[in-house]
Amino acid sequence: VTSHLNTNIRIKLPVVCFTWQIAMIILFGVFVRYDSESDAHWPETMIQNNITSNTENDFYYRYPSFQDVHVMIFVGFGFLMTFLKRYSFSAVGFNFLIASFGIQWALLMQGWFGSLDPSTGKILIGVENLINADFCVAGCLIAFGAVLGKVSPVQLLVMTLFGVTLFAVEEYIILELLHVKDAGGSMVIHAFGGYYGLTISRVLYRPRIHQSKHLQGSVYQSDVFAMIGTLFLWMFWPSFNSAIAYHGDGQHRAVINTYLCLAASVLTTVAISSLSQKTGKLDMVHIQNSTLAGGVALGTAAEFMVSPYGALIVGFLCGILSTMGYIFISPFLEKNLKIHDTCGIHNLHAMPGLIGGIVGAITAATANELDYGKQGLINTFGLTGKLQSRSPSTQGGYQAAGICVALAFGIVGGAIVGGILRLPIWGDPADENCYDDEVYWEVSTTDTQHLHYIL
Amino acid sequence: VTSHLNTNIRIKLPVVCFTWQIAMIILFGVFVRYDSESDAHWPETMIQNNITSNTENDFYYRYPSFQDVHVMIFVGFGFLMTFLKRYSFSAVGFNFLIASFGIQWALLMQGWFGSLDPSTGKILIGVENLINADFCVAGCLIAFGAVLGKVSPVQLLVMTLFGVTLFAVEEYIILELLHVKDAGGSMVIHAFGGYYGLTISRVLYRPRIHQSKHLQGSVYQSDVFAMIGTLFLWMFWPSFNSAIAYHGDGQHRAVINTYLCLAASVLTTVAISSLSQKTGKLDMVHIQNSTLAGGVALGTAAEFMVSPYGALIVGFLCGILSTMGYIFISPFLEKNLKIHDTCGIHNLHAMPGLIGGIVGAITAATANELDYGKQGLINTFGLTGKLQSRSPSTQGGYQAAGICVALAFGIVGGAIVGGILRLPIWGDPADENCYDDEVYWEVSTTDTQHLHYIL
Amino acid sequence: VTSHLNTNIRIKLPVVCFTWQIAMIILFGVFVRYDSESDAHWPETMIQNNITSNTENDFYYRYPSFQDVHVMIFVGFGFLMTFLKRYSFSAVGFNFLIASFGIQWALLMQGWFGSLDPSTGKILIGVENLINADFCVAGCLIAFGAVLGKVSPVQLLVMTLFGVTLFAVEEYIILELLHVKDAGGSMVIHAFGGYYGLTISRVLYRPRIHQSKHLQGSVYQSDVFAMIGTLFLWMFWPSFNSAIAYHGDGQHRAVINTYLCLAASVLTTVAISSLSQKTGKLDMVHIQNSTLAGGVALGTAAEFMVSPYGALIVGFLCGILSTMGYIFISPFLEKNLKIHDTCGIHNLHAMPGLIGGIVGAITAATANELDYGKQGLINTFGLTGKLQSRSPSTQGGYQAAGICVALAFGIVGGAIVGGILRLPIWGDPADENCYDDEVYWEVSTTDTQHLHYIL
Repeated sequence: VTSHLNTNIRIKLPVVCFTWQIAMIILFGVFVRYDSESDAHWPETMIQNNITSNTENDFYYRYPSFQDVHVMIFVGFGFLMTFLKRYSFSAVGFNFLIASFGIQWALLMQGWFGSLDPSTGKILIGVENLINADFCVAGCLIAFGAVLGKVSPVQLLVMTLFGVTLFAVEEYIILELLHVKDAGGSMVIHAFGGYYGLTISRVLYRPRIHQSKHLQGSVYQSDVFAMIGTLFLWMFWPSFNSAIAYHGDGQHRAVINTYLCLAASVLTTVAISSLSQKTGKLDMVHIQNSTLAGGVALGTAAEFMVSPYGALIVGFLCGILSTMGYIFISPFLEKNLKIHDTCGIHNLHAMPGLIGGIVGAITAATANELDYGKQGLINTFGLTGKLQSRSPSTQGGYQAAGICVALAFGIVGGAIVGGILRLPIWGDPADENCYDDEVYWEVSTTDTQHLHYIL
Repeated sequence: VTSHLNTNIRIKLPVVCFTWQIAMIILFGVFVRYDSESDAHWPETMIQNNITSNTENDFYYRYPSFQDVHVMIFVGFGFLMTFLKRYSFSAVGFNFLIASFGIQWALLMQGWFGSLDPSTGKILIGVENLINADFCVAGCLIAFGAVLGKVSPVQLLVMTLFGVTLFAVEEYIILELLHVKDAGGSMVIHAFGGYYGLTISRVLYRPRIHQSKHLQGSVYQSDVFAMIGTLFLWMFWPSFNSAIAYHGDGQHRAVINTYLCLAASVLTTVAISSLSQKTGKLDMVHIQNSTLAGGVALGTAAEFMVSPYGALIVGFLCGILSTMGYIFISPFLEKNLKIHDTCGIHNLHAMPGLIGGIVGAITAATANELDYGKQGLINTFGLTGKLQSRSPSTQGGYQAAGICVALAFGIVGGAIVGGILRLPIWGDPADENCYDDEVYWEVSTTDTQHLHYIL
Repeated sequence: VTSHLNTNIRIKLPVVCFTWQIAMIILFGVFVRYDSESDAHWPETMIQNNITSNTENDFYYRYPSFQDVHVMIFVGFGFLMTFLKRYSFSAVGFNFLIASFGIQWALLMQGWFGSLDPSTGKILIGVENLINADFCVAGCLIAFGAVLGKVSPVQLLVMTLFGVTLFAVEEYIILELLHVKDAGGSMVIHAFGGYYGLTISRVLYRPRIHQSKHLQGSVYQSDVFAMIGTLFLWMFWPSFNSAIAYHGDGQHRAVINTYLCLAASVLTTVAISSLSQKTGKLDMVHIQNSTLAGGVALGTAAEFMVSPYGALIVGFLCGILSTMGYIFISPFLEKNLKIHDTCGIHNLHAMPGLIGGIVGAITAATANELDYGKQGLINTFGLTGKLQSRSPSTQGGYQAAGICVALAFGIVGGAIVGGILRLPIWGDPADENCYDDEVYWEVSTTDTQHLHYIL
């Protein structure tokens, strides 16, 4: 029976951590160097390129956004998942672990595809690579949300290794080969990460998960902790969507759009949450999650000229759809498709990610010189060189194709990785031990007794 | 009897949220567009205005400060109010709701008064508008502190709608018509918001509020949560006071002054708090609130040449006065003037806001070319065009007039809005249900039992 | 007997706070003025120095990093120390108090040594001084970690007064006289602060501390609060190590190195933590602390060309050593050397600080024009003027000398200050009252009863 699963990870976890960290050191030694803006030869580069001010170093354009994104990855995602009554250590701790591993692997994978110096074969990294590595890891943290409480840290590391790999390939196809724009990652990050996690959760379906039902909800304090995650995600989402947008008006506009979109999501989330209860009481799950859906759904189009009211409309709809997802779709997925989704990533990431892809495709297809100006159109969609003859409507078509690629990678990749994770060697918990920090963490006995008392 | 009040907000809250969000979409559609620095035509604007670097886009001057202010609004104010033992969901959740609504309405109201393009009738928004919208909402969140636990979310939305409206008019009179300087909003934000909230609380006075006395204090964990709010407010206040200050030395100086002023507040707050108890023990209420008074009181003068020791003196005095406010004035206000002030906003915002206005008036009146330089004086006080002949002492007089306008708007506005909020249609809680999340939120029964046990 | 110690601080604490704050005001009045970039004469300075853009004001290079450092000092250090089950008020509150005092005294002390205008005798301050003041205080907050729970707030203020003084002298010797580079303060901040605190803890050794053993551990919620501190320290450490690095590539490179180093620390910390327990369970103490060791150890070399894989190696080793420190060295120090170290600052700061000094010395000694470029070498090591003939290997020697200076100041200074703190006048708690907020804070009786219940 499952209750005899061996959750002792004393050998497995250290072996995996050490192996992978040593591999990272070797690969970084062979491949990774500083880019021209972070290399000590920068003063010479400035002279060669006639750059007169250090302010032109990309660092000053992107570092404040980078730090906000970094907070989203570690505090935002980490604390958002602390809502379970006895899984806060794992939520914030495993998030910390897999993100720290993932960013290293992401720098390599994304570097091989995107930042390779052809003359030396080296990956040259700067602040934009750090942002992209954080983005890449976000996809895996989203997937973590679907299986929260039901897997071991070793499984999470494996999931992250493959997740980052898939992400880098998918991103290369979408952003480079198809030349799709997706600065905030509606498709590349959220749709991919969402369907990757949901598919894995389907493959790992546990029919007897109800045996740990008593640990599946939240308690008062854990809900307040989760709000720390929600708010840091919500506040810094404008940085997420603008971090790698075009310098100047691109970053500026992405911030305005995301700010507005998220504000609208809050109002409609509250409205639907209240409507869904007989007495109009609000549900913390909705407030913690669906308020963020607008940020996801504007990931692609944030830097486009969607116009302020357009951003509000996207937020309006996504707050409604995401909250209704929690009320109707999540129970349906669990009951009918055997997809158990602990954090409801379908409603916060997968579905809004798809919406974001569609919004982006429509906005791109309808772009024109009147709204953007000639140079603005070129800058925003990067239509230079070979692409200078691509029309907005063609771009819209490619954007739509990008959605399909993200979806395919998420589902197919998730199915394969889910299969690997089913191997009985990863130290995953028994059904009755799910959602319990005690399986993987030292917890004092007084804490345990106290928990049993309040339950 | 009051206990039969209907707190079911299942229809009211969604109706208000949807109505207002749809109104926002329509009004934004009619009125709001990107400004020149966030519009895709920016590359053309750069050429026309001979701007050679994207670093000159106001975005890069103000975005880091904006994000800090954003954290203050949502995490700072939200978590500061979580100190009550069973009202943390409402504190952080309703703060989230009303701020998200308020910033949208503020962009419109402030836009009509200040950012209207006369040729097209459109409001053109950029990052400075986002900061100002956050500022505007801060006034309403301050007012929320006075009535925390005693009103429904619907009342809060109404209070915010009128609060933002009053704020925009008051701000226009003070900053534009009187040409008063108030970059950190001592008068415009804190004095206005403080008296607005106190007056509303007076009108909504509940003689039998003692029926929920058992829920009015804090518990250990809720006090620690509140310190998250305190610290993020305290740390980012230099950004608050410098966010819309003059580029260059103006922002730089505002940061230094606020940093010093707040540090001094902490020491005198601790001193008075310790003195006030027989055994010298510290009171968390003082530490959570009065340590911030210096930031409020330097809101007007932060960008002036108050000199570093001047900033310390302001912080020194405000720490003392604010803490003594908690010890002596708040009980007096409740007993004699029937003003019940849940968070003590009188001591943290209203009174320090007035002090800030006075400090600003004195500093402005004594400004001179020796201290500022000729151009510095013009830049700091914006004395160009029609105002170029206005002397510092005249400016000081106008600054003093600004205090009176803020006060008048707070008190008269609060009285009117308080009257509206007394209508028996808003779903406010009975006296014995105040300070209780269970009225408006789904809370598990084990949580409730646990609370009853520990009380 | 010790239980008759008088912990009433009603006179002592206010007297110290007032005296010191008044002294600060007087000294700031005599000595401190704005520097040229924060003074209202800046527009004239721009013209004189042919500066055409406000973006060249140092404020815009350093303010985002400053705010991150500020968060580390107040939220990072403050919350990291909330892990004790009933000492969270003191952890976050006393941290707030001593940091607020310390930054003022640091501006003076560091100003006298480093920012004095020779013509006027004034200290001229700008954003870099604020960062350095925060850095200086960090040394004292580290020392606080060793004595957490065992001293009174008055003792902490005395410790901070002397700590900042010692720091400023030590920093002057190391950075100015020896011209050692230490942008992130491995030696100057961490090694000094660590040994300063450990020595004080040795002098204040309490043989009967076991009388408050029941309060010395953590509870579930307090461990989650502590993770807030951990994560904000971890996320913003790249800003810490880059905040005062050279503009352009210096800051850029310091961020990349620190980011990578910290990521590697997480993996090896998890590995060793899991290995150390029979069943492979993770220990929150390790995750909260040792994950940060990489940031400490790269404090000196972060701006050097250590190369990305070099940064990973440092993080790899420090995660291992720091975690093993918690497992083996801390018990050894307590048992054999009578050094009781509440937070394990030996493992997080002292030892990694030494490692950081060594890494810096080696990296400096092996620097060459091939890796740095001619100008890069000059910029990175500041080898101009009298120092232009100093070779990298000589620089390496001076770096090593810097370690010794930091160590000497920490140990000798700590011994003297420890002696002062043993005077029976500071209101420190009895052995059985250690780690208890009730000694210095108003705590409700229901909270106390609840604590006794869950223990």
